[in-house]
Amino acid sequence: MGRVNQFDVSWGAPRPERADAARNRQHLIATAREMIAELGQERLTMDALAERSGLGKGTVFRRFGTRAGIFQALLDDGERAFQEQVLSGPPPLGPGAPPLDRLISYGQARVRFLVEHQEIARAALDGRQPIPSGSQSPLSQAHIRMLLGQIDLGPADLDLLAIQLTAALDGPLLLYVSATDLNRAPDQVERRLLPGWHDLVRRICRP
Amino acid sequence: MGRVNQFDVSWGAPRPERADAARNRQHLIATAREMIAELGQERLTMDALAERSGLGKGTVFRRFGTRAGIFQALLDDGERAFQEQVLSGPPPLGPGAPPLDRLISYGQARVRFLVEHQEIARAALDGRQPIPSGSQSPLSQAHIRMLLGQIDLGPADLDLLAIQLTAALDGPLLLYVSATDLNRAPDQVERRLLPGWHDLVRRICRP
Repeated sequence: MGRVNQFDVSWGAPRPERADAARNRQHLIATAREMIAELGQERLTMDALAERSGLGKGTVFRRFGTRAGIFQALLDDGERAFQEQVLSGPPPLGPGAPPLDRLISYGQARVRFLVEHQEIARAALDGRQPIPSGSQSPLSQAHIRMLLGQIDLGPADLDLLAIQLTAALDGPLLLYVSATDLNRAPDQVERRLLPGWHDLVRRICRP
Repeated sequence: MGRVNQFDVSWGAPRPERADAARNRQHLIATAREMIAELGQERLTMDALAERSGLGKGTVFRRFGTRAGIFQALLDDGERAFQEQVLSGPPPLGPGAPPLDRLISYGQARVRFLVEHQEIARAALDGRQPIPSGSQSPLSQAHIRMLLGQIDLGPADLDLLAIQLTAALDGPLLLYVSATDLNRAPDQVERRLLPGWHDLVRRICRP
């Protein structure tokens, strides 16, 4: 991963990590989560994390680069857990359910994940624009592509359809997460986006 | 428009412009087009445009800011012509055709427009990432929303569906325009994206 992760690139193959580096990372992430829970995320800064973790500013800086990098790491960590659920969790998100149910469940779980992590996602962006969906959701797209292949869709360009669907899933979410005027409550967002994804997939996949 | 345009923001309401400023802009854009046609776009720089236009570096700098700004202005100018076609050109892109035909025609015209202007679009981005579709295609989204309202879709969240469709249209195009490894010929891209949009719309809108 040559480029700075911006949103959801944790899906890529993980870099091999030395054991002490992995321990430091886990300790820093756990400490950051504690600090958010106890103090609120505004108080989570590079200096405060270095002090609380006892690991020193150099280590925190090398690991995260910027304050936004801490939140990106928290988001990546959450995405890894989400990915686990998709690959080997219970159906219908995990394996074992019919592909159409899994496709609907996948999009809805992704909506819930990002709405739940919206504060962290926003802090990870830190004023930057997110990059367009499609290019940055390789696993999302691969997963949708795999499920489309298992549904009887008739003649279709499945690779392109997977790009279109990934964009249609991420587009409204990116709008929401990058919105600066956040007057929409999370439950209102879910109330529209969950049935919206269900309806889109149902329309596209009906025989 | 408070923020730097990145891709397709020319759709917004135009700023009022003084007559001499408008003349300068038109002269600069016409000169830039001549230079691209005669010399290739690599040779179109701020200095070269100032010299050839006879308007001085200060004027060129104030107008465009950066070299990428020249290409953004060229793209905006092309988009204005495209918008004219959508709003008052011949059917099926312009008014007068059934809404489903107009919707299909709109997406295909947008694919053709961006594939045709890909070099300019890429130079306008100049290494930056484009911003996600949806937020940045207000007219695209409004036009798709209007057409969806004229099609009998049964119960549907038409505003959300318009966001999803705009993202599904722009997603593959943004991938293409922002790709650094351009081993796909324009006609190959059109050969996939034109039927891909047709198929998506047909699936979503069938009764």
